[in-house]
Amino acid sequence: MKITVIGLGLIGGSVALDLKSQLNVIVHGVDNSESHRIQAKELELVHQITDLNEGVKGADIIVIAIPVDKTEKLLSEILDRIEKHTVVIDMGSTKSKICHTVREHKNRGQFVAAHPLAGTEFSGPSAAIKGLFQNRRNIICEAEKSDPDALELALKFFKSLGLTTRFMDPEDHDRHLAYVSHLSHVSSFILGQTVLDIEKDEKEIFNLAGTGFASTVRLAKSNPITWSAIFMKNKNNLIKALDSYIENLKAFRDLLEREDTKGCEQIMTYSNSLKNILKS
Amino acid sequence: MKITVIGLGLIGGSVALDLKSQLNVIVHGVDNSESHRIQAKELELVHQITDLNEGVKGADIIVIAIPVDKTEKLLSEILDRIEKHTVVIDMGSTKSKICHTVREHKNRGQFVAAHPLAGTEFSGPSAAIKGLFQNRRNIICEAEKSDPDALELALKFFKSLGLTTRFMDPEDHDRHLAYVSHLSHVSSFILGQTVLDIEKDEKEIFNLAGTGFASTVRLAKSNPITWSAIFMKNKNNLIKALDSYIENLKAFRDLLEREDTKGCEQIMTYSNSLKNILKS
Repeated sequence: MKITVIGLGLIGGSVALDLKSQLNVIVHGVDNSESHRIQAKELELVHQITDLNEGVKGADIIVIAIPVDKTEKLLSEILDRIEKHTVVIDMGSTKSKICHTVREHKNRGQFVAAHPLAGTEFSGPSAAIKGLFQNRRNIICEAEKSDPDALELALKFFKSLGLTTRFMDPEDHDRHLAYVSHLSHVSSFILGQTVLDIEKDEKEIFNLAGTGFASTVRLAKSNPITWSAIFMKNKNNLIKALDSYIENLKAFRDLLEREDTKGCEQIMTYSNSLKNILKS
Repeated sequence: MKITVIGLGLIGGSVALDLKSQLNVIVHGVDNSESHRIQAKELELVHQITDLNEGVKGADIIVIAIPVDKTEKLLSEILDRIEKHTVVIDMGSTKSKICHTVREHKNRGQFVAAHPLAGTEFSGPSAAIKGLFQNRRNIICEAEKSDPDALELALKFFKSLGLTTRFMDPEDHDRHLAYVSHLSHVSSFILGQTVLDIEKDEKEIFNLAGTGFASTVRLAKSNPITWSAIFMKNKNNLIKALDSYIENLKAFRDLLEREDTKGCEQIMTYSNSLKNILKS
């Protein structure tokens, strides 16, 4: 089976590594960055580095794992020219626009719109790790628009990576993800910015930061190109989430100013209920 | 050597556990909550549970590890009646007001104002763990107001827990901590609140949250009583930090609305520089 992974960063590279260890799979890798290609070769992420034309030719599965602002154009081009047996899977973090773009494409049935919920704050081929997707969740959107055979192969593919799949409407996906993922990233990036602004001349102060600070700003180490593309693609939902977050911060600030200890504690106790909801 | 730990929660309980494993140390524990006393006994955090009077009597070191809104009153009472050889160490997360309160006390020399930078999001006696302070930093404020003998004993005490100590002015301490600790806690509590508001009826959605969300809201599991006391005690610095954070969030939101990708990326790249500063 020939599988071509387009984009050999954290996500694509990790997919490639897992696939490479499977029997009877030949993994081809495509990346438009020369340095990524060199790194992917050195790190042996794939069996073979190739170009887009060669990658598409005869592929059983094509995995797209590139920044979400580049996906629409590339996906349409690929769907225009794939062979009858090829299944194309997109792994991007936003789903509404991509689903909308290809909704009427003649080969829509050969496409599966997915989002495996896994990652780290690192990026590029060197961030690829085996087992990244183990025991994580995957979302497939508009599954009913994929041909049954294509969907079945995609489900097998995700299962082989250790993912369990659930189905969701793309608009619901983007709305939920704005809260449980994209907002965390913004809050972390801006917390990093705010603290750096004050402490940049006293770097030694960061040694005093407890492990709490480190975990809260972990996502601020994430790739700006990847994440700005996600933020823009999910702009409306994210702005709504951000507006609520800012309003809640202001309200807490005012409680603090009025020394309303009970009011502050009430909010904190409410937020504590995440203890019972989050597994980790 | 008799050491009395007042407050047997996460910090005090962890101190007690570490001390208990040292030769020639008898650890007495005081806590005004009955359930804490019962738990501490069951968990064998100390050699002996006692009351404040007995705890103070003949103690070589008295460690105060209670919520910061309760410390001023208790510390003054203890300083009023300690024996000549006793050293009192406060472990609280804010330092300006406590230092100010006892500045003119006749036994100020027997007091050491400290803040070991360690903790977890858990609380109470059951959160106590051995080695919590290993390889962490400790801050001592107004060291020059402690008697040399008292300071020397306190430094040995902190070293025996695995802490390295640096000295800082209490106002500087509170200003820096507002940024590198207290602001992280607020941002995390309010992120938790914001996401719960939207997703509380769809708890299953939290299963979709990646590990990024979990680490960003980790601190939202922290104890509301402990942290509201810290926030109130450091109100002015924290409001300043919060105002900057809110301003920066608003500016980012506006860049997003204008689809200024470059502007967003610039801020995110700046925030990325934490990679080079934070050790973990």
